[in-house]
Amino acid sequence: MLNRLNSLEALVHGRKAGHSLEAPFYTSPEIFEADMEAIFHRHWIYVGVEPDVPEPGDVASVEIGKASILLIRDDDNEVRAFFNVCRHRGARLIDEEKTTVGNLVCRYHSWTYGLDGRLLHAPHMGPDFDPSCKGLKPVHLRSLEGLLFVCLAENPPEDFDEIAARMGPYIAPHNVRNTKIAYQSDLVEMGNWKLTIENNRECYHCEANHPELTVPLFAYGFGFAPEELDPIDLENAQRYDALRQASHAEWEAMGLPSREIEELDTRVTGFRTERLPLDGEGESHTMDTRAACRIPLGAVANAKLGGLSFWTQPNSWHHFLGDHIVTFSVLPLDAERTLVRTKWLVNKDAVEGVDYDIERLIEVWTATNAQDAALVAMCQQGATSPAYEPGPYSPNTEMLVEKFIRWYISRMADHLAQ
Amino acid sequence: MLNRLNSLEALVHGRKAGHSLEAPFYTSPEIFEADMEAIFHRHWIYVGVEPDVPEPGDVASVEIGKASILLIRDDDNEVRAFFNVCRHRGARLIDEEKTTVGNLVCRYHSWTYGLDGRLLHAPHMGPDFDPSCKGLKPVHLRSLEGLLFVCLAENPPEDFDEIAARMGPYIAPHNVRNTKIAYQSDLVEMGNWKLTIENNRECYHCEANHPELTVPLFAYGFGFAPEELDPIDLENAQRYDALRQASHAEWEAMGLPSREIEELDTRVTGFRTERLPLDGEGESHTMDTRAACRIPLGAVANAKLGGLSFWTQPNSWHHFLGDHIVTFSVLPLDAERTLVRTKWLVNKDAVEGVDYDIERLIEVWTATNAQDAALVAMCQQGATSPAYEPGPYSPNTEMLVEKFIRWYISRMADHLAQ
Amino acid sequence: MLNRLNSLEALVHGRKAGHSLEAPFYTSPEIFEADMEAIFHRHWIYVGVEPDVPEPGDVASVEIGKASILLIRDDDNEVRAFFNVCRHRGARLIDEEKTTVGNLVCRYHSWTYGLDGRLLHAPHMGPDFDPSCKGLKPVHLRSLEGLLFVCLAENPPEDFDEIAARMGPYIAPHNVRNTKIAYQSDLVEMGNWKLTIENNRECYHCEANHPELTVPLFAYGFGFAPEELDPIDLENAQRYDALRQASHAEWEAMGLPSREIEELDTRVTGFRTERLPLDGEGESHTMDTRAACRIPLGAVANAKLGGLSFWTQPNSWHHFLGDHIVTFSVLPLDAERTLVRTKWLVNKDAVEGVDYDIERLIEVWTATNAQDAALVAMCQQGATSPAYEPGPYSPNTEMLVEKFIRWYISRMADHLAQ
Repeated sequence: MLNRLNSLEALVHGRKAGHSLEAPFYTSPEIFEADMEAIFHRHWIYVGVEPDVPEPGDVASVEIGKASILLIRDDDNEVRAFFNVCRHRGARLIDEEKTTVGNLVCRYHSWTYGLDGRLLHAPHMGPDFDPSCKGLKPVHLRSLEGLLFVCLAENPPEDFDEIAARMGPYIAPHNVRNTKIAYQSDLVEMGNWKLTIENNRECYHCEANHPELTVPLFAYGFGFAPEELDPIDLENAQRYDALRQASHAEWEAMGLPSREIEELDTRVTGFRTERLPLDGEGESHTMDTRAACRIPLGAVANAKLGGLSFWTQPNSWHHFLGDHIVTFSVLPLDAERTLVRTKWLVNKDAVEGVDYDIERLIEVWTATNAQDAALVAMCQQGATSPAYEPGPYSPNTEMLVEKFIRWYISRMADHLAQ
Repeated sequence: MLNRLNSLEALVHGRKAGHSLEAPFYTSPEIFEADMEAIFHRHWIYVGVEPDVPEPGDVASVEIGKASILLIRDDDNEVRAFFNVCRHRGARLIDEEKTTVGNLVCRYHSWTYGLDGRLLHAPHMGPDFDPSCKGLKPVHLRSLEGLLFVCLAENPPEDFDEIAARMGPYIAPHNVRNTKIAYQSDLVEMGNWKLTIENNRECYHCEANHPELTVPLFAYGFGFAPEELDPIDLENAQRYDALRQASHAEWEAMGLPSREIEELDTRVTGFRTERLPLDGEGESHTMDTRAACRIPLGAVANAKLGGLSFWTQPNSWHHFLGDHIVTFSVLPLDAERTLVRTKWLVNKDAVEGVDYDIERLIEVWTATNAQDAALVAMCQQGATSPAYEPGPYSPNTEMLVEKFIRWYISRMADHLAQ
Repeated sequence: MLNRLNSLEALVHGRKAGHSLEAPFYTSPEIFEADMEAIFHRHWIYVGVEPDVPEPGDVASVEIGKASILLIRDDDNEVRAFFNVCRHRGARLIDEEKTTVGNLVCRYHSWTYGLDGRLLHAPHMGPDFDPSCKGLKPVHLRSLEGLLFVCLAENPPEDFDEIAARMGPYIAPHNVRNTKIAYQSDLVEMGNWKLTIENNRECYHCEANHPELTVPLFAYGFGFAPEELDPIDLENAQRYDALRQASHAEWEAMGLPSREIEELDTRVTGFRTERLPLDGEGESHTMDTRAACRIPLGAVANAKLGGLSFWTQPNSWHHFLGDHIVTFSVLPLDAERTLVRTKWLVNKDAVEGVDYDIERLIEVWTATNAQDAALVAMCQQGATSPAYEPGPYSPNTEMLVEKFIRWYISRMADHLAQ
């Protein structure tokens, strides 16, 4: 074990800049455990949205590695998080992904906890038993305008407030707290979680793989090699750039912050955002580029808001459109399997079949997710080969992959130095 | 590996009295291997009953970890046990759980063994081959009034004779050898074997989880916090205690030993017994508390014999009623999966559909087993959480769990000291 | 890990001659990894036949442990082998077992390789990128009269030329390159790969297990204990021996090399061959011992050519009949699972349903493979038992098993000494 960790240290410090990682980062169960400890148990992990628990007594459970976490909305309307473990014999308290309760009652011996985690009742324990020491163990939780992040560590990274201050104004106009979950998909990708994130951080693969996503998205928005463009492509690229700048100016004038913030590898809680113009009608991530839901999310009348994208390290990305939000949480299962949980949110007053059609709402990203899962599986298969070696990232189209990997390596180095 | 075993030593010696075990005891594959070596390969393990092999030539196979064992009734009517491995190329000899043979013939190259394990025939081995050294490897086997215990070690614990002497008179009146197996169920519980046993050693969970079992069983028989009882409950508890003492006196006068023997943590082969009165009609573990089989097991005319319970460390429990026996063998599969094998025995002259109905016979324990399996799985899930920590046992209702754990820890400590 | 490898060394050097291996050789994941490294990544491994890729642009993929290999026929009609890994992000290039391509295009980012492995196109990589260093990694490949062997090591064993020189004349008359694959079966045996090979290297088990195979095969051809034969058996054995010698003389006069070459444990690339007379009509491995295909493989008119058998260490055997070829490749999956891939080849001009019937062609070996898989699984089950110990090989019928094991042990010893 020590030898293996020493070798993790060597792998971390020997990382070749501008290249994909050495194979064990994708395949080794030991490095997976180190990832869980260093990354997923110590950073802010995106796990869901406030509309997952819309009413007092609503409970949602989510698994971060071996830790099952409960998100609970208390009677005071606060959302809190606890470990899903009874303090008596250690039974899992809630088995369902979603439920509603008065109190949290362990099925095993009826130990009963309040929505605030306090142990209210524990029969037969005798007069010497002190229930005040046996409340549910709390988990740090922060809501960024309705996006829920938890941290399993005792001392979470301190930069969340700053991120909330900078990102809040971008997200707030989309009114996450006023939405409902129209649809959720859970997809298990047969690859390491870092391959899932790497794949998310570039659109170099979009042209060959995502016929649906490239309907609303401009490929130019994700980089290209200028020297390879023919005159027509070059003109299109320049036109796109002009559109982006004009749109930013227009949107910001409307009170919608839109310009890029790029902090992917410059802080503990790395993130990036930008509002991007969309192709066609420019309204939404749909096959006709028009809104999928008739009731807008926010107060802004104009439907052509483009798409506000928001990426966080280590495990999320989100697209805020004028009519809906699609939000992704990446939850590692083991070294070679990763859960991608996708939620589509619409205005909570929208009525299915009247204001929106589920198929149309989820069409683009359901197809895109399936395509991405196949690509991630191909990379996992390749990384297990003795012939695999780190390959070079494109300096034009894979800069954000490089930033994710640089962030990851620096977080691991910090962890190993402790 | 050494580090892990050292840490096992630390975990064993650091066990917190009165509390459930540290998580690795339930989850670690290394500690599972240690359990198999120290507990299941060195103690008397309950594997079945003589009626599993009623006739000469009958063979039953049973798996204790990676060891497949054959129980064979020889022509002299003796039951013997052997390892299920051919001495030539190591093939498993018998694949079925039950079969009947003349000799044991290996399918691979026709090496042929007698029912006493001697190698009778091995073709093509040449004149220098000595078959007398290549008989099947024997396994220690003891029958306690028809209950079969094996020990895989060369030198089994020596206390079995004493247990047989003390328990024999309790069990003998139920005539195990005169029964047949009316039904067997094999249930895989998704938890460590110790969680299965812990769950069996308390009825604190019965009220909330076992609506069927609590029909015949008095909850008071398994402990309560006296200070929590209201006057009505207290009176009921006192009435139950009087009934128990009166019943013991009555049954013992009939020649049925009934009073508690409690040796769960005082010896290598820990055990406990007591005959307990039943609720309602008081006859059997059925939903109407009447006998499930019209032909009694023994010579005693009175049907209201209560239930003689018998528990052994590490892996069995049994309930001997007037009309049938239900007997449980716990066989670990891996750190997180355990086989619970339940057999319902009735008088061998009883005719199914005439003297007993299978559904009625197995109703209570089939439901109870399924409920227990769900509880064990909840505890296993909880024990894998980083938030799990040992919780306190109730001093009123979980004393026998504590005794099991104390026995286990002391057996492991002994093993590590060798 | 070091301890485990030291213990591998002890196991290798402590091997008991004339006996099956110690259990860890069949069950340990660590020794499986050592087998893959020492044996399957450094020796010539039989993977298929030229007719797997009959036309330019045809590609076949095959897995040797974690290495996926592509067999590709180039436009110059040469067959070449490459690792199935893109040099960019490491994606597996070809997912299908068989396909036909113009160039090899990675689905991920459209990196494009020629059939000779050169990187032809890599978009967006910028002017500093040098594609000449990023061709597909080649794998050593040799064709022995159409049988394809690969070696994953940089420096493959040097004795292949000599084997080709000695074996070529035996195989050439059967015209492998002029055949097509009439049928392929992939069977996963639930046992270690060495049990699969051991089982293949003796016919001691044939009488009790292979009713179909023993129709064309004479059991006498695979050894017996002379002192156990009764006078009739002895006369039959002598008659068989005379037939074999007369057949060899006759076939060699026809230009068909037929006499035994036995080099199973005398060289790095161990092998053995002999042409054996068949029972009944003597034509083929069929249930009526007549040819299964009306069009012969070669130019020789006489259909009674017996069966030329060819065995290689570590992973193949083959039977060349007058009318068809059946050829077996053994590919380990993990310590306890092994793929046996069987191909039946007929003259490429033969028409299914007219010149041959698939059922009749594959009948004998389909049954035999299934029987062998059951035997291998029995041995694997036995080897996991704590009661397993190495058993003695028959000096009369298991000499070739002993030679395989001796070869294996000597190859492992060589590897550990490096």
